[in-house]
Amino acid sequence: MRNVEIYETERVDDLLTHDLSIIQSEQVFSFSMDAVLLARFANIPKYGRILDLCSGNGVIPILLSTRTNAQIEGIEIQPRLADMAQRSVEMNGLAERINIMEGDLRDLAKEGGNGIYDAITVNPPYMPLTGGDLKLSEHQSIARHEIHCTLEDVAQAAMRLVKPGGKISMVHRPQRLGDIITMLRKYRMEPKVIRFIHPRAGSEANMVLVEAHRDGKPDVKILPPLIVYQENGEYCQEVMDIYYGPKEEKA
Amino acid sequence: MRNVEIYETERVDDLLTHDLSIIQSEQVFSFSMDAVLLARFANIPKYGRILDLCSGNGVIPILLSTRTNAQIEGIEIQPRLADMAQRSVEMNGLAERINIMEGDLRDLAKEGGNGIYDAITVNPPYMPLTGGDLKLSEHQSIARHEIHCTLEDVAQAAMRLVKPGGKISMVHRPQRLGDIITMLRKYRMEPKVIRFIHPRAGSEANMVLVEAHRDGKPDVKILPPLIVYQENGEYCQEVMDIYYGPKEEKA
Repeated sequence: MRNVEIYETERVDDLLTHDLSIIQSEQVFSFSMDAVLLARFANIPKYGRILDLCSGNGVIPILLSTRTNAQIEGIEIQPRLADMAQRSVEMNGLAERINIMEGDLRDLAKEGGNGIYDAITVNPPYMPLTGGDLKLSEHQSIARHEIHCTLEDVAQAAMRLVKPGGKISMVHRPQRLGDIITMLRKYRMEPKVIRFIHPRAGSEANMVLVEAHRDGKPDVKILPPLIVYQENGEYCQEVMDIYYGPKEEKA
Repeated sequence: MRNVEIYETERVDDLLTHDLSIIQSEQVFSFSMDAVLLARFANIPKYGRILDLCSGNGVIPILLSTRTNAQIEGIEIQPRLADMAQRSVEMNGLAERINIMEGDLRDLAKEGGNGIYDAITVNPPYMPLTGGDLKLSEHQSIARHEIHCTLEDVAQAAMRLVKPGGKISMVHRPQRLGDIITMLRKYRMEPKVIRFIHPRAGSEANMVLVEAHRDGKPDVKILPPLIVYQENGEYCQEVMDIYYGPKEEKA
């Protein structure tokens, strides 16, 4: 692990896999299970170029690096977070494989070049711009509400930036499923694989993973549900494997 | 049970609940689990008017009659099937509560009056008009392929025929989820409740139940999945309850 500057209020958390760590801050941004599940679910190539939109503290590019040799770029609109992400990349010795851009994905979509990425990942702000949680800091509000980035912005950027046949993998809230599908299709990103995450066997879904293909044919596959907790309150085996790696891999 | 004419190739099957029976024919139409699940899932009022589109042999109106005192109408485009459905209604002594119309739902949508139903149910043809299964009879083809009735026809008819705030409940194939959501929303039927049916815990979904509300606000609830078979190959308790009624109700 390389030495990088860690600011007050920040901490370094173990990503529990491949000796990776990440800089987090309760006041600014810390990742949740959503990002971990997306990093495992995402349909990404072994080589080529991958773009992570709304990259936050860079958790998804860093986790993706364990699954691919592709070049990974992340874009994050908040300077504070983009800087945090870049320091995490350097801390993990991944600076040659991951590049964090500070900027607006809407600008990247206009100026970044058409169809230059093989795959896109995104853990976008979940909540539409109605109301707002006063307890959130400005950093947290931007990460959670569609202030600088709506679903439409994401779908439009993906359509421009990904190759024909390229893939976008997204984690979102099931409440937004109607909007997600409508917006993806509006920009020719056809939903192909969907997986719902339920906290318990008898609960409604609280997360959804969606893979869409640029100019794909309409044909949706609904994967088996992921039930996070067993009846005894412990994580199910699949979640354990996602967090800690499958048993076979353990030393 | 009243006496009605039963033709050659037809048989009378027990619906296993409330002493109901139904006329079926392998060569023409026989219902499947899809219809039974829809009849249980459908959001219907206790009183008022309910319409079942693509009614087939009338299995859904007949099953719905056990859950409501509302007037139920069914519309079926195939004369052979509409006749079969009407005889089943009479056989079960339900002629005062269920009326089967022979006709095209597109005509009903134009001429039937705006917003006259409280709720709509539909088990539409699942397959788009590409290719076709040569083994199917003409009757079966019409029931399974979008020959006389597309998803768009269903969504458009529902928008016209249901009251503002009224509900449509549909069973369909998950492969069509993108089209289902797009078409419903195009005609202001907002998807609100979705449930996926998986044959086994580790299998992809093979059915989807969707409830949409006319002019509803975008907000989707994904119910816990229904896993049809247990590991031992037997139906799970919920499917047993749906087919045979919950244990408490048994004599």
